Amino acid sequence: MMQPPAINLGVELVVLLEDPSSGAGTVIPRQVIGAATDETAIRSLASQVDVVTVDHEVLDLDLVTRLQSEGIVLRPDAATLAVAADKLAQKRQLLGAGFPLVEFEELDSMRRFREATERWGGTVVKAARGGYDGRGVWMNPTPETVEGLLDRGLSPLLAERPMERIVEVAAVVARRPSGEMAVYDPVETIQIDGMCRAVLAPARLPVTLLDKARRLAEEVVSELETVGVTAIEMFVVDDRVLVNEVAPRPHNSGHHTIDAALTSQFENHLRAVLDWPLGDPGLRSRAATVNLVGTTTGTDPRETIEFGLATDGSAKIHLYDKTPRPERKIGHVTVCHDDVELALKRAWKVAEAMGCEVRR
Amino acid sequence: MMQPPAINLGVELVVLLEDPSSGAGTVIPRQVIGAATDETAIRSLASQVDVVTVDHEVLDLDLVTRLQSEGIVLRPDAATLAVAADKLAQKRQLLGAGFPLVEFEELDSMRRFREATERWGGTVVKAARGGYDGRGVWMNPTPETVEGLLDRGLSPLLAERPMERIVEVAAVVARRPSGEMAVYDPVETIQIDGMCRAVLAPARLPVTLLDKARRLAEEVVSELETVGVTAIEMFVVDDRVLVNEVAPRPHNSGHHTIDAALTSQFENHLRAVLDWPLGDPGLRSRAATVNLVGTTTGTDPRETIEFGLATDGSAKIHLYDKTPRPERKIGHVTVCHDDVELALKRAWKVAEAMGCEVRR
Repeated sequence: MMQPPAINLGVELVVLLEDPSSGAGTVIPRQVIGAATDETAIRSLASQVDVVTVDHEVLDLDLVTRLQSEGIVLRPDAATLAVAADKLAQKRQLLGAGFPLVEFEELDSMRRFREATERWGGTVVKAARGGYDGRGVWMNPTPETVEGLLDRGLSPLLAERPMERIVEVAAVVARRPSGEMAVYDPVETIQIDGMCRAVLAPARLPVTLLDKARRLAEEVVSELETVGVTAIEMFVVDDRVLVNEVAPRPHNSGHHTIDAALTSQFENHLRAVLDWPLGDPGLRSRAATVNLVGTTTGTDPRETIEFGLATDGSAKIHLYDKTPRPERKIGHVTVCHDDVELALKRAWKVAEAMGCEVRR
Repeated sequence: MMQPPAINLGVELVVLLEDPSSGAGTVIPRQVIGAATDETAIRSLASQVDVVTVDHEVLDLDLVTRLQSEGIVLRPDAATLAVAADKLAQKRQLLGAGFPLVEFEELDSMRRFREATERWGGTVVKAARGGYDGRGVWMNPTPETVEGLLDRGLSPLLAERPMERIVEVAAVVARRPSGEMAVYDPVETIQIDGMCRAVLAPARLPVTLLDKARRLAEEVVSELETVGVTAIEMFVVDDRVLVNEVAPRPHNSGHHTIDAALTSQFENHLRAVLDWPLGDPGLRSRAATVNLVGTTTGTDPRETIEFGLATDGSAKIHLYDKTPRPERKIGHVTVCHDDVELALKRAWKVAEAMGCEVRR
C-alpha cells in the first residue's frame, strides 16, 4: 500500500522480502530477497536507498541498533522500534510520561495473577512480545493457561484490568524528524475476538471526546518523538480517554485514509520518513472500512472480486495478494459516505459478495 | 498511472517497454523489453496475460491485426486502433455516423489548400497520422509550409475550418465489451500553443451544455464500440457541441479523476478491458489539474517536489519519472476544491514552486 503513493510522488522503493512471488514482491521491481533479520540483506537494502523504514516488528533489534550506529538512516529509529516491540517497556514509558493508561502490571508469578484477578474481578493477560491481531492476548484466562505461559517463558507477560463499556478508538499521526505533525481524525475500531474487523471514520463520539482523543494521540507521538506514521490505539471510558497501544507504522486503523482522506497514511509515512512536508490529513468524507479476512472454506477474493465490484460501484476494494487463511487479513473494502453506518453496511455487503468472512 | 489501481485490485500488470530504467519500468516488476512494433516482444507479452491493452498509437497495425486474428485478446481492438491512428479515417467514420464535426476535408493538393483558406478565411492543417500534443498541427500555415508538407508526404493531411470563440471540452468514457458504460463529467481543457496545459472539472458551462457534451461523448463511444477508456475531445460553439478528436485510451484530460472521482479513469480502464463491473465515475468534488511541463532550464520536479509539497498541503502531485524536456509533460498537479478557479490558481502555484513551466 506504500507503492501507489510512491509512484505518484516519484519515490522509488526497494523492498526487503522473503517471498518475491506475492504481496509487495509483485508490485515493487527493486527487491532484496532475505529475512528482516538477515544482516547481509539489510546492508544490501540500505546501500541502495536514502532511508530505511519498517512496517512490522519482527526484527533483530540488536542488529538494527548496530546498523543505525554505523550511519544507516532508520526511520522510525532503533530505540522507537525497541520500545514498540515490548508492550511492557512501552507502557512503562507512557506511564512515566504521565499518560492515562489502563491499569497494568508485569505478570511474573501465579501469585501476581491471583492478586490481579481478585483486585480487578478478572484479568487480561498479554505477551509483551510477538503479539499481533489478537494473538498473544488472553481474556480472563484460567490459572492453568497462565501457568503454562509462565512455564514456557516465550515472552514476559503483563496483566491488565479488563475494561467494560468502552469504545475502542485509534488515531494515526505522521511526524517528521523536525517535529512537524499531521494528525488524522480518531476512528472507531470494531473488534471481534481480538481482531479489528471494521473501522468507522470518524469515531461516533461527541466532538469534545474526539478532540480529546486527537490531542492525546498527538501528545503521545510528540513525547515519543517517533518519525513516520504512528497509530495510537485508545479506549474511551465514559469521558476518559486511555492509551492502549502504540504502533510506530502505518496501521490497519488508518487504511480508510487511502480513499477517505486528502493524504493517505501511506503517503504521509513516505513524506515523513523522507523529511518532506506533510500532506493534509483531513477527511474528504466520512467512511467505513471492513477488513477482508480469510475463511475456513478458503474463498479467495482475488477470484471473487467481480462480485464485490458489481455489488457497489463506489466501494473501493483493496486486495493484498495474500493467500487466504482463516483469521488472516487479505484485503479491505472502504465505502465513503457521510452516513457511516450506511457506509459500514455497504462495505460488509461487498465483503459478503466476495465470500469473505462477515462478522458484524 | 495504471499501476496504483492495479495494485489495489490485485491485478498483476506485465509491461512492454523499451527502457526499463524510467517511467513504467521502475514501478511494474514484470516486464518485456522491446518496441511496441516488435512481434516477438508482443507475443511474449501476450503469452503472459489475459488481456493486452495499449496506451499510445505508435503501433504496427498490420501486426496487431494479425495477432488478434490468431486469438490474442486486444482491448481496444485492432480496428479501433487503426481508426484512432488516422484522423482522416476517424473523422470520416464519425461523419458517416451523423455526429457533428468541425468542417474538414482531405488536403492532397495546393489547390485544395487555397480553396479551403479562401472559403474559411484560414485553415488548420493537421497530419492524419503521428500527431501528438500540438505536433502535427499547423494553424493558418503559409503556402510554403503546406507545400513542404505535401512534398515530404510523411502523412496524409487534412484541412479544418479554424474555430473562434470556442470552449474546448473533453469527456472520458469507459466501456466494457458488453456495452456497459461509465461516463465522466465533461471537463474544460485549457490549451496554449496546441498543448493542454490545464483541466477544469467539470467544465464551466451551463448544465444543459454539460449534459449535451456528456451525451455526445456517450453516443460516440456507443457508436464506435470501443472497449476500455476513450477520451472524446469536443468544441463548444455557442450552444452547439462538435466532436474534435477521439482517443481510445486513458487521457490527459482525465488525470484529475485519480484524485477527484470516485473511480479513476485508470481503474475503470482496467475494469473495462478485464470485462469487470465498472466503478462510479462521479466527481467527489470539483477540481483543477495543471500539467507539469519541462522547461528550457531543465528544472526537474523530481528534485524540487518538496517545494511543491510545502506550497499546498492538499495538492496532489503526480510525477511520471520522465526526464524533463521543453514541451514534454512530466507530471501533473491536481487540487480538489469546489471553487475550480481557486483550485486552478493553487495548482499553478504548486507547479511554479517546483520550477515547472507556468503558462496560464
